[in-house]
Amino acid sequence: MKESWSAFDTFEPHFRPLVVIELAKDTKEETKEWLTQRIEDKKKNGGAQLLVKPLAKEDGGKIDGNENIYLVGASYLRLLLGAETVGLVKECNDNSMRTFTYSSRKTFKDFAEDNHNFLTMSECQYIIKHELENLRAKDEKMIPGYPQAKLYPGKSIVRRLLTNGILIQFFPLHDKEELKKLRHIWYSRVKISFQPLDEIRCYFGETIALYFGFLEYFTFALVPMALIGIPYYVFAWEDYDKYVMFASFNLLWSTVILEIWKRCCARMTYRWGTLLMKRQFEEPRPGFHGALGINPVTGKEEPVYSSIKKQLRIYLVSLPFVCLCLYLSLYVMMIYFDMEQLALDYHEENETSFSNLMLFVPSIIYAVVIEIMNRIYRYAAEFLTSWENHRLESSHQNHLILKVLVFNFLNCFASLFYIAFVLFDMKLLRQSLATLLITSQILNQFAEALFPYWLQKRHNKKIKKRMCASKMDSDLSLFEQINMEKEMGTYLGTFDDYLELFLQFGYVSLFSCVYPLAAVFAVLNNITETYSDALKMCKIFKRPFSEPTANIGVWQLAFETMSVISVVTNCALIGMSSQVNAIFPESKTDLILIVVLVEHILLAMKFVMAFLIPDKPRDIQIKLARLEFESLEALKRQQIKLAAESLKDETHEGKKRI
Amino acid sequence: MKESWSAFDTFEPHFRPLVVIELAKDTKEETKEWLTQRIEDKKKNGGAQLLVKPLAKEDGGKIDGNENIYLVGASYLRLLLGAETVGLVKECNDNSMRTFTYSSRKTFKDFAEDNHNFLTMSECQYIIKHELENLRAKDEKMIPGYPQAKLYPGKSIVRRLLTNGILIQFFPLHDKEELKKLRHIWYSRVKISFQPLDEIRCYFGETIALYFGFLEYFTFALVPMALIGIPYYVFAWEDYDKYVMFASFNLLWSTVILEIWKRCCARMTYRWGTLLMKRQFEEPRPGFHGALGINPVTGKEEPVYSSIKKQLRIYLVSLPFVCLCLYLSLYVMMIYFDMEQLALDYHEENETSFSNLMLFVPSIIYAVVIEIMNRIYRYAAEFLTSWENHRLESSHQNHLILKVLVFNFLNCFASLFYIAFVLFDMKLLRQSLATLLITSQILNQFAEALFPYWLQKRHNKKIKKRMCASKMDSDLSLFEQINMEKEMGTYLGTFDDYLELFLQFGYVSLFSCVYPLAAVFAVLNNITETYSDALKMCKIFKRPFSEPTANIGVWQLAFETMSVISVVTNCALIGMSSQVNAIFPESKTDLILIVVLVEHILLAMKFVMAFLIPDKPRDIQIKLARLEFESLEALKRQQIKLAAESLKDETHEGKKRI
Repeated sequence: MKESWSAFDTFEPHFRPLVVIELAKDTKEETKEWLTQRIEDKKKNGGAQLLVKPLAKEDGGKIDGNENIYLVGASYLRLLLGAETVGLVKECNDNSMRTFTYSSRKTFKDFAEDNHNFLTMSECQYIIKHELENLRAKDEKMIPGYPQAKLYPGKSIVRRLLTNGILIQFFPLHDKEELKKLRHIWYSRVKISFQPLDEIRCYFGETIALYFGFLEYFTFALVPMALIGIPYYVFAWEDYDKYVMFASFNLLWSTVILEIWKRCCARMTYRWGTLLMKRQFEEPRPGFHGALGINPVTGKEEPVYSSIKKQLRIYLVSLPFVCLCLYLSLYVMMIYFDMEQLALDYHEENETSFSNLMLFVPSIIYAVVIEIMNRIYRYAAEFLTSWENHRLESSHQNHLILKVLVFNFLNCFASLFYIAFVLFDMKLLRQSLATLLITSQILNQFAEALFPYWLQKRHNKKIKKRMCASKMDSDLSLFEQINMEKEMGTYLGTFDDYLELFLQFGYVSLFSCVYPLAAVFAVLNNITETYSDALKMCKIFKRPFSEPTANIGVWQLAFETMSVISVVTNCALIGMSSQVNAIFPESKTDLILIVVLVEHILLAMKFVMAFLIPDKPRDIQIKLARLEFESLEALKRQQIKLAAESLKDETHEGKKRI
Repeated sequence: MKESWSAFDTFEPHFRPLVVIELAKDTKEETKEWLTQRIEDKKKNGGAQLLVKPLAKEDGGKIDGNENIYLVGASYLRLLLGAETVGLVKECNDNSMRTFTYSSRKTFKDFAEDNHNFLTMSECQYIIKHELENLRAKDEKMIPGYPQAKLYPGKSIVRRLLTNGILIQFFPLHDKEELKKLRHIWYSRVKISFQPLDEIRCYFGETIALYFGFLEYFTFALVPMALIGIPYYVFAWEDYDKYVMFASFNLLWSTVILEIWKRCCARMTYRWGTLLMKRQFEEPRPGFHGALGINPVTGKEEPVYSSIKKQLRIYLVSLPFVCLCLYLSLYVMMIYFDMEQLALDYHEENETSFSNLMLFVPSIIYAVVIEIMNRIYRYAAEFLTSWENHRLESSHQNHLILKVLVFNFLNCFASLFYIAFVLFDMKLLRQSLATLLITSQILNQFAEALFPYWLQKRHNKKIKKRMCASKMDSDLSLFEQINMEKEMGTYLGTFDDYLELFLQFGYVSLFSCVYPLAAVFAVLNNITETYSDALKMCKIFKRPFSEPTANIGVWQLAFETMSVISVVTNCALIGMSSQVNAIFPESKTDLILIVVLVEHILLAMKFVMAFLIPDKPRDIQIKLARLEFESLEALKRQQIKLAAESLKDETHEGKKRI
């Protein structure tokens, strides 16, 4: 069966480098040889059957210090077979989406034996990444030249090389031409229009395109809130009924937008094919360790770690630690409020310019301490989650996200909750909310995109100067391009970007009835955020590997939870407002009961709405049902065929027996 | 391909009747002939390839008035192929569960070519039902002899016959021997033990076994509540802290039991194979009508009805109608309370024995009116749901269940809510709760099982007397058995049984802190309920067709919703209790705020718990993952094989071109 793979054993005339592998400087020659041989080896021998070339200068000569860089590519045929292996879904000639198989390749849109654009470059890179990561040890007991880097049959070689520091990194190459085109339609002109999500997806993959899609969708979804919020500021509306209306609208609106996002997301990922993509069986994540055992699912040898031990670590160590950190954070907040009070008292006593300056000191100290705590906590969370030893990358990510999310939520909003529900100071709440929202937005954009962009620009200039001062950016040779790209920062995933949006959603929705203008600032921020994030992706970071994904995962849940919490906070705020209290002068009990009743009705309405709005648009549902129906029919036909064959054998045997 | 089905065209020596078909008395001969011919016809001719015999007396002679009854059976081979078509899942020799295919039949446990017990009788009957329902019109434009009964290619013949009243019913036969055995281990001896769920499932199918499983599980789950509830009654505990403890325990307990039920259910249905069973593509339900069109999923001709029209009917007619009925029900309740008050006033004024009697009149009138309203509403709900014209049986059922559920909920609990939260009369609440719970339980058991059982017994005696007075029950010939069974009532599904449990759960949980003894009564009722339901299934009704199912469906959601509502009611009740009010004598506001806080914490805890407890036990998860992994691997192997073949062709062609 495997012999067939040898059929495409011929090098293509044009070797197109797709992925760069950087080994450690002091890697032994023996190891290099073994690795390239394993990557180039045929499938039937357990290799990846890809093409590898060491990086060379244009004149063909190797250069010092770059002997440890290799370029990986593959023949077109190899890539098509790889597309089948990873389960890529493409559009057919009849406009339906189907899983690509090599044998049915001619039914796919735009397929031609010589059309090398059938697979986008990011798809090719994803395939190569998949093949490299699935290059597995056969009977090697260790990596040649490194006796301490143990291997066992079936262990991913690349992952072992990475954990042992022999492989420094492997990353996909940028495509200068494509990137230029993308930059042009994406952000080079300031204009009001939708983002080119399909193009972003082609270049950066589904995960990143989905983030930009969500950012855009979210911005549009906030526009009605912002539009309604403006007159509250302009006319200084303070009427009870207007606030209640605004809050009720916000609360129901947030459920509607989150439900409709699911539909938009399904429509988008259907078009991209990832909605239909079958989840591959997940291998253990690189950091997972344990005694060698038998995986009960695959029946293969791999590290095994007791699930009970993991649970104990989560509930007996991580959970108490997180609680302790939350407590500490609250404690620091209380100290801050005490300091604030002290500074205020001091200022009132003395009224000098020094005392006036002193008023800012607590805030500054608090901001610095929060930032330090955030960073320490992030490290601790990463360490703890690694120590919990999750087998799957997805489970590791979810636990990490949950830890970081809870802490960030508290850090951002605890002081606001304290001001609102302990100090009952609505004016201070509005002030703090505005300050926090605006400063965090400005700082974020600066820290996230503009500052790294400036750094990158300076760095690039230095490199270019060193290499050859006269060349233009577009004229860079492959050699120079790779040398430049390998020094670029690595994009660590969409986590921080989503977190930023999540906290922004919190500022907008949690206290929306106190500060209707928050939505306006959020919209303004998100418009510039789009540009700065685009800049970040195109200019600052290495190109990331494309990651197929069908939805925004755990973030959907996080946003929905936030929208439920915001019902509680908004109802409480309205109940506490002086305007509402003026309506029930005699009986506070009635007021509270009514507020609680309204809160329960709103919550119930939210749940009913979430239940009634279908997660997928009707046409997508029908398309999915048709695919399922077709596969069931195919299965039935196949079964009938098999049964027929076996029946023939039966009767044949029967006749023989007679 | 289809020719193969002719291989098993030989009648087996012993024809075993499995399903009975009863046609209308005046069915034309032409129609009978056509129908039997279509049922017996080979698969390749579009028939069902089953065996049909007219019912005959033992001596072989036909009898008057029974010419319209037919027996359907099938050869063993036909049944095995049918098992593959319906996607039956059976246990393999290596103890894993796999979808049965004829070609892999030898890998299945207990399979032997001559072991006719490999498929249980209820499975055989399910297969025959499936084959009969999937017997479809070819080019007939109408049912022969009935020009008004239109057909179109692909229309299910049996469904058309049913809707036109030509086919009166078709039902599976009881197996006297098996039924006797089942009755013996199930309920003939009074003993404390688990029910024989596996045997029930073998005889009655998964849906009914799952109901009895849930009934048993639910009874056991109520035992802790009942045990804790007893001392409250015995020692007349009225302390605040004890009530709070009891209520908190109940509220969290109800989430735990509902979550653990999912796990138990998954374990059971895995063992039965239904957890793995692929959902078949659902055909339109018999009553569905519309202009002939093309189904967008199958591409076949079938009635099509606009989804928008359906939505309009639901939201513009059904929803207002249901709301109106709910309002009416509330209105009737208010009249009842007024009447009650009048009767009380009258009694206080006069104090005669007549006035004492008059005290009961309002309750009796109310009970009768409620019962009448319930029945009218049930008809109206069924009519409306039919009129909404749902394409799928499942969607029809869900809409019907929702309508009936809401109305029954209000009818049962509105008066209790009124007493609790408007009259604030805890004593009356406890009294009403006890009365309602106990009377409804006694009436239910009587109306549901004992009375029909007595009727049935009398009826059976009459028939037996008419036929031949001397014969014993077990000696009944097939002819007599069928004549007796066809007159038995039809079991209309588990809806009413679940509804009873649902309302019981409401009585137990909604006001648990007021009347802890409710759980005790519920447990006692459920123990006898088990027996009366078993009696009902075995003695009163026709055997129902087995229905594979993987869970209790919409009822899980209904129970979970009830447990959420009970958090709100219990917190409110505790907040209103005089003991709790005594603790906060000065500030009612504080009390309410604390109660609301506790309620929110409890709700949050319930959601977190529901999220944390996995829906499937770990070993079942692993088994499911293994199956998925295996099918992915198989797919991969197949793809590689296909790719190999196409590559060979490629290179072959390539060489030729050269």
